[in-house]
Amino acid sequence: MAQQHHDSTAGDALTEYLQSQATEFLRSLRLHGESGVDAAEAAEAALALRRAARRISATLHTFRPLTDQAWADGLRTELAWLSGTLALEHAYASRLDRLLEALHRLAGAPHLPPARTADPEAGGPGVLTGTATAAPRAKRPPHEQSGGGKPAALAVGAARAGALLERQLTLARTRAHSAALQALGSSRFHAVADAVAVLASEVPVAPAEAEDLPPLAARVEARLSEAVAVLPLGRAGHPYNAEALVHGLASTPGSEQQDAPWHQVRLLLRLHRYAQEVLGADAARLAGASEALDRHRDAAEAAAASAAAARTPRIAPATAYALGVLHADQRHEVEAARFAFQHLWHRSMAAAT
Amino acid sequence: MAQQHHDSTAGDALTEYLQSQATEFLRSLRLHGESGVDAAEAAEAALALRRAARRISATLHTFRPLTDQAWADGLRTELAWLSGTLALEHAYASRLDRLLEALHRLAGAPHLPPARTADPEAGGPGVLTGTATAAPRAKRPPHEQSGGGKPAALAVGAARAGALLERQLTLARTRAHSAALQALGSSRFHAVADAVAVLASEVPVAPAEAEDLPPLAARVEARLSEAVAVLPLGRAGHPYNAEALVHGLASTPGSEQQDAPWHQVRLLLRLHRYAQEVLGADAARLAGASEALDRHRDAAEAAAASAAAARTPRIAPATAYALGVLHADQRHEVEAARFAFQHLWHRSMAAAT
Repeated sequence: MAQQHHDSTAGDALTEYLQSQATEFLRSLRLHGESGVDAAEAAEAALALRRAARRISATLHTFRPLTDQAWADGLRTELAWLSGTLALEHAYASRLDRLLEALHRLAGAPHLPPARTADPEAGGPGVLTGTATAAPRAKRPPHEQSGGGKPAALAVGAARAGALLERQLTLARTRAHSAALQALGSSRFHAVADAVAVLASEVPVAPAEAEDLPPLAARVEARLSEAVAVLPLGRAGHPYNAEALVHGLASTPGSEQQDAPWHQVRLLLRLHRYAQEVLGADAARLAGASEALDRHRDAAEAAAASAAAARTPRIAPATAYALGVLHADQRHEVEAARFAFQHLWHRSMAAAT
Repeated sequence: MAQQHHDSTAGDALTEYLQSQATEFLRSLRLHGESGVDAAEAAEAALALRRAARRISATLHTFRPLTDQAWADGLRTELAWLSGTLALEHAYASRLDRLLEALHRLAGAPHLPPARTADPEAGGPGVLTGTATAAPRAKRPPHEQSGGGKPAALAVGAARAGALLERQLTLARTRAHSAALQALGSSRFHAVADAVAVLASEVPVAPAEAEDLPPLAARVEARLSEAVAVLPLGRAGHPYNAEALVHGLASTPGSEQQDAPWHQVRLLLRLHRYAQEVLGADAARLAGASEALDRHRDAAEAAAASAAAARTPRIAPATAYALGVLHADQRHEVEAARFAFQHLWHRSMAAAT
């Protein structure tokens, strides 16, 4: 099945891309497992591993007709499992960072410690993120001593909201850490690593002609365009439209429903960018729009975490108030990300024509 | 002191402007006091009365050197007292409308009744606003029956937050209503009305030449320009800068401090517009910018009312959470108003040159 003997064609471009991503995957895995790597190196290796896994999976999806399809589908399922498992710990850690940073900004500097990433003392390296695992952070004073009077209750609320979010997200992260450890020791993981190792030397793709790749890449681009066409870009381009908070206090919050098409575009834009990479085209002009949708997703999940924390039984009203402010703040970040996306998207479309 | 015998000069422009505003003041007062006017007519009369009072007061301020200054200062003090007293009831009513409308939007349509202004059944006309006075609104169900489960707690929170704000702001409005009634029956009020009646026929302004008015108007414009120059317009022009919520949860909230220069520009812009009216210049191009700063003030006060309500003892966490979301929503309206102002201001400056 190896394609090394062909002339350099577009089919080879696919083979070469998959091989280089597989090699990167294996390099990251080896680097991460090495003794003596520090937390930052391990975190970087974990990100690189997930980046390569995403690209392999996306490429097998886009160019599926050119591959051994049963094999491609099987590997994609396993890569999705691995990426998903490894991503969770990092997701909880960065969600907590985002929320503490926002509380920090909302409450003023003295009331909250710097965000987790700036504090290398907080604990040992995580499985794959290099951040603190389960070590609780130093407790901050439960009361703002200097203020006195009623406004101080809000500062207390911010501190308590931070402590509550930290407790809940650290617990979630600890569980994700255990799950990741378990995954990395499983035979299922070793089977994925073996499959990627095979991919690094022999890619099971059919002999492809130069003209085989672009139509498949174009199909992805068409799906992306259709998905973008249903986004309310006109409204998103009007600053302060307050759309992201609409129905935010309803018994059935409307955020999931309104966020879904943006999340869908995020995934399709990634597929499109990776397909462009395979073709050797310039995908960098789309990086900004892609990052805006990453921020959109992160802010939406942080807002949801704040709303979820507010449903903890027996919290103080000041804590709940702070979580409400924080929720709205993050929903406005959602709206800001949409505004940024529509701007970057229109600009990249204008540059392309 | 009457100026009727002069030729039509710029000095006459001042006299004529003051006379026409005084006439409008008296007409509104008479219309308001007439038996048989309905609530809408009374409200319109009250707005017209305050509008005329503002213009008389501003004109006496800007063109003070051309008037009997002791008399002008005395009348301005009395007009400020009257306007302030009459404005409060309307301010509380419209603040409640704004907050209920926002909660309505945030909670979805079924959970809150339409805003007060759409409900003529709620009570008799107010002293000067034509809206309900102290009649409590029909109670909405304290629980959202349909939802069930945790998200419903948020809808309950929104309903309770609305009920709490309604209670607090209706109480404040009722007190303002009583104070306005008392003011309208006082000898102090009758003295103001008499002074304005004199103004309608004889204006105590010095014989002024055409060239006397523009320098005084220019002085106001210069003060306005200086005040606008210290506003962070660059930052305000960058959408979603999150400035308005900075330190919103601090023990000493930073909002009053950051709002003050905008409030100052609002007052100076009004002075400037009225001075332009006296000169017969076109002040309409500044109306949009002026309205943006009115919205800025209203949203800032609504946000403060929401924060104040959250400090009510023994409220439920769901109520506090909803008030936090509402506070942040209104602070974003503050930011949106700043964005709108800088846009309109730059546009009106470009049109002027």
